[in-house]
Amino acid sequence: MESTAAGTKPRFSLARVRNHWYVAATSAELKSNKPIPRVIFDTPLVLFRDESGTATALLDRCAHRNVPLSLGRVREGRLICGYHGWAYDGAGVCRDVPALSGDATGRARRVKRFPARERDGFIWVFMAPDDEPAVEPFELPHLADRRYTTVRHAVTVPATLHATLENILDVPHTAFLHRGLFRGGRRHPVTAVVRRTADRAEAEYVGEPRPAGLVGTLLSPTGGEIEHFDRFILPSIAQVEYRLGERNHVVVTSALTPIGDFETRMYAVATFRTVLPDRLMKAILTPVGIAILEQDRRMLRRQTESVRRFGGEQYVSTDVDLLGPHIWRLLRQAERGDPPTEDVFERRVSLLT
Amino acid sequence: MESTAAGTKPRFSLARVRNHWYVAATSAELKSNKPIPRVIFDTPLVLFRDESGTATALLDRCAHRNVPLSLGRVREGRLICGYHGWAYDGAGVCRDVPALSGDATGRARRVKRFPARERDGFIWVFMAPDDEPAVEPFELPHLADRRYTTVRHAVTVPATLHATLENILDVPHTAFLHRGLFRGGRRHPVTAVVRRTADRAEAEYVGEPRPAGLVGTLLSPTGGEIEHFDRFILPSIAQVEYRLGERNHVVVTSALTPIGDFETRMYAVATFRTVLPDRLMKAILTPVGIAILEQDRRMLRRQTESVRRFGGEQYVSTDVDLLGPHIWRLLRQAERGDPPTEDVFERRVSLLT
Amino acid sequence: MESTAAGTKPRFSLARVRNHWYVAATSAELKSNKPIPRVIFDTPLVLFRDESGTATALLDRCAHRNVPLSLGRVREGRLICGYHGWAYDGAGVCRDVPALSGDATGRARRVKRFPARERDGFIWVFMAPDDEPAVEPFELPHLADRRYTTVRHAVTVPATLHATLENILDVPHTAFLHRGLFRGGRRHPVTAVVRRTADRAEAEYVGEPRPAGLVGTLLSPTGGEIEHFDRFILPSIAQVEYRLGERNHVVVTSALTPIGDFETRMYAVATFRTVLPDRLMKAILTPVGIAILEQDRRMLRRQTESVRRFGGEQYVSTDVDLLGPHIWRLLRQAERGDPPTEDVFERRVSLLT
Repeated sequence: MESTAAGTKPRFSLARVRNHWYVAATSAELKSNKPIPRVIFDTPLVLFRDESGTATALLDRCAHRNVPLSLGRVREGRLICGYHGWAYDGAGVCRDVPALSGDATGRARRVKRFPARERDGFIWVFMAPDDEPAVEPFELPHLADRRYTTVRHAVTVPATLHATLENILDVPHTAFLHRGLFRGGRRHPVTAVVRRTADRAEAEYVGEPRPAGLVGTLLSPTGGEIEHFDRFILPSIAQVEYRLGERNHVVVTSALTPIGDFETRMYAVATFRTVLPDRLMKAILTPVGIAILEQDRRMLRRQTESVRRFGGEQYVSTDVDLLGPHIWRLLRQAERGDPPTEDVFERRVSLLT
Repeated sequence: MESTAAGTKPRFSLARVRNHWYVAATSAELKSNKPIPRVIFDTPLVLFRDESGTATALLDRCAHRNVPLSLGRVREGRLICGYHGWAYDGAGVCRDVPALSGDATGRARRVKRFPARERDGFIWVFMAPDDEPAVEPFELPHLADRRYTTVRHAVTVPATLHATLENILDVPHTAFLHRGLFRGGRRHPVTAVVRRTADRAEAEYVGEPRPAGLVGTLLSPTGGEIEHFDRFILPSIAQVEYRLGERNHVVVTSALTPIGDFETRMYAVATFRTVLPDRLMKAILTPVGIAILEQDRRMLRRQTESVRRFGGEQYVSTDVDLLGPHIWRLLRQAERGDPPTEDVFERRVSLLT
Repeated sequence: MESTAAGTKPRFSLARVRNHWYVAATSAELKSNKPIPRVIFDTPLVLFRDESGTATALLDRCAHRNVPLSLGRVREGRLICGYHGWAYDGAGVCRDVPALSGDATGRARRVKRFPARERDGFIWVFMAPDDEPAVEPFELPHLADRRYTTVRHAVTVPATLHATLENILDVPHTAFLHRGLFRGGRRHPVTAVVRRTADRAEAEYVGEPRPAGLVGTLLSPTGGEIEHFDRFILPSIAQVEYRLGERNHVVVTSALTPIGDFETRMYAVATFRTVLPDRLMKAILTPVGIAILEQDRRMLRRQTESVRRFGGEQYVSTDVDLLGPHIWRLLRQAERGDPPTEDVFERRVSLLT
């Protein structure tokens, strides 16, 4: 394997911000009678609904002989292990050991519980089970606004959380990798204002022409300038917002969940209102969006393979890598538990798109 | 990965009792003209029959260029390597190097031999090749008794030797995992007497009703109490014995062979005489037994995966885990070579089955 | 796993002679518009043709976000990364970053270049990119001689470079593994003269009868003695040469390329003139050669698996392992950079073939 450039120690951009909320599943995936397995930060979780229907997350391992509880079933709101029938309630307390007469509860027989919330059609889990959550899950915008239509799509990306976030919020690759589908053709000079605050980093594009390609033409057949924001919000939200006049507004929010260091689940929610009929927009945008996701997924897989093969990242960034370095800084600060800074970073950058 | 409970260091229940006999193959598998490869304790072995037909076990690696001897063939009782034709006798001595004129024997050209015995339809290998076997292979009961019928079945289980032994000899899971096939329905109180001596641990069930489900109904249509023993015998024998009156007697002996730390080969021999016609018993018991084995195998695979994923076992045992802890104690003592104790441990336990 | 013989520490015969030339691809494989990925010594390379059509080798990793450059395309002799469109010239200098206005070049944006040569239908790469090549690639014999016909074949062998070289140049296994195809039948005494000089080791066979089997019969229907040389030339050339009288001459040169420690690419070039029509020779020799290669490949795979399973090689050599030990000695000296010795080693050995 090649040695790295002098003085550069290869590493992976891995930050594990545990004391925060991550989407573990969609509400629709969690039925009342069947537990489902999920993995976040390499930790196996089992999700189930207790007797009140409340979504619950436990460590996916029976206290007895360590088989996954997700192999079992739910009976009257209790999660029952498939091996010997140990039954757990929503707090992870063992309520029944079938072969044992007498009380089954007992501290050693407990299974660790993770705080869970069901909100906006998702089940969010707080990944620091011994901490009290100091924050609530990210609230998805416009879901309750009846003027907006929502489309959801989930995909697993073989890449780090950081690489996935940077990819979603990076403009330069769109003109190249997604040429035709999204941007491409002649290069236009654009100014971006990059801002970083305590919990987020965003790029606002000034003077950006309507994107060339199919998406842009649909949004505004007559062209014109657009408002465009790319945003990262701690710990794992990537949001792309477009506004074209009063009547076109598209927000794509991706809640990312780190399955492991090199695997990230992406729950994308597109919320929009446009001049075109909703059903037409939906019918066209969905396949285009999925095609873009597939191109990105393939590239991220190859990036991950390459970085792992070389034993670490050796990135070279330029001025037009607007958000990646800021995302990394925020993730690292949050992982270390640094107190949030009140400083606002702001900078203007010229780029060609 | 989750950290473990305070003070508990995760580990695997791995004991490698090498100075003992393990089944390497069935007699039928070893033809006179073809070597076969086997792996025990991760050690590749080649089995073949020498000129007298005696089953022989050598390390499966040619002394010359280290290719597996099991790729070769047997000619006149010599095992011939497939690469350059080096020929070995039943003692592992090299008798011919085709391209070399002169004597081929020589200490460096020897391949290590493991003691082997052919008995009860199995080929047993002693896994400490430099020791003289102080014991003989376990003798399977009733094989010579013409009143008994024998059915054999072999299966590879993706689990440790200890987890497999515990599973075979564990009663509580049968009412749950094998519900319907074996036990299940209403719970009955039963008393078990657990005994541990120098080379074995057994549980004798007192006052056990005829098992519910298909197996029990076949054994005794009229119900009644049964005699039931579950036995572990060092190093790797699991035996389940049922007697219902004078005329029904079933002994299932499983000789387990550790292929590697997390893979165990199970040679099960069911020997029985019952009031029902042998062919009927055989026709019914065989598919039921195989179905039970498949359920256990699936659960053991998931247990193994889970334990490895968490970096070790974190078991919580209760009083009704009758034999698992005793099996582990005997295996560890045997692995360390502790002198056998004359003490007899005995304890009565109530459980619901 | 078995412990090894007393005093023998198991190891792998791995020598990585980097400051030398290896075949990375055939000329035909490298089109003008498409880069191709190759791996040598575990180092990912991308090959492409610059604007003058010159074969070029770079490290297969974009300086920006580390995706493989071989995923991209070639435009006007520049290699363009598929992710953000960074464009590299034949020296590995970045000439364009599409989203960036201003000069794109800059030392940090460079990708490491490996010296490359196109010769004899192969693209050779020098694997010490920071050194100046002190030698040129091995010149294949007789390619320009119109009396000779050439057949080429490439295959990937799952074995170390050393094991593959020894296999190609080893006579004793041919009578056994390739019995019928090549040698076999009654054993004949032969004398071999083994010579080792600074950069090569060869065995010359004296008094060797025409090989039995199909190949021999084709070369000389009337029998007779042959001239036969097996040669290793640093760092990775294996050459087998047969001459039968004035009119039959066959040279098979294999240029081996270590993909990784246990995977070797073999570019075989057979050059011959015989009494038989070229097309007939070609039509018969090609399938026979491929069949022999497949037998060797299978055996080398099993040898590699076995050696890795045992944690290292534990070879025992005899006098008739003529070249293997000398090849190893030369490879190790070259890897360490020992000054070449002027001594000539020569020894006569009797063997049966």
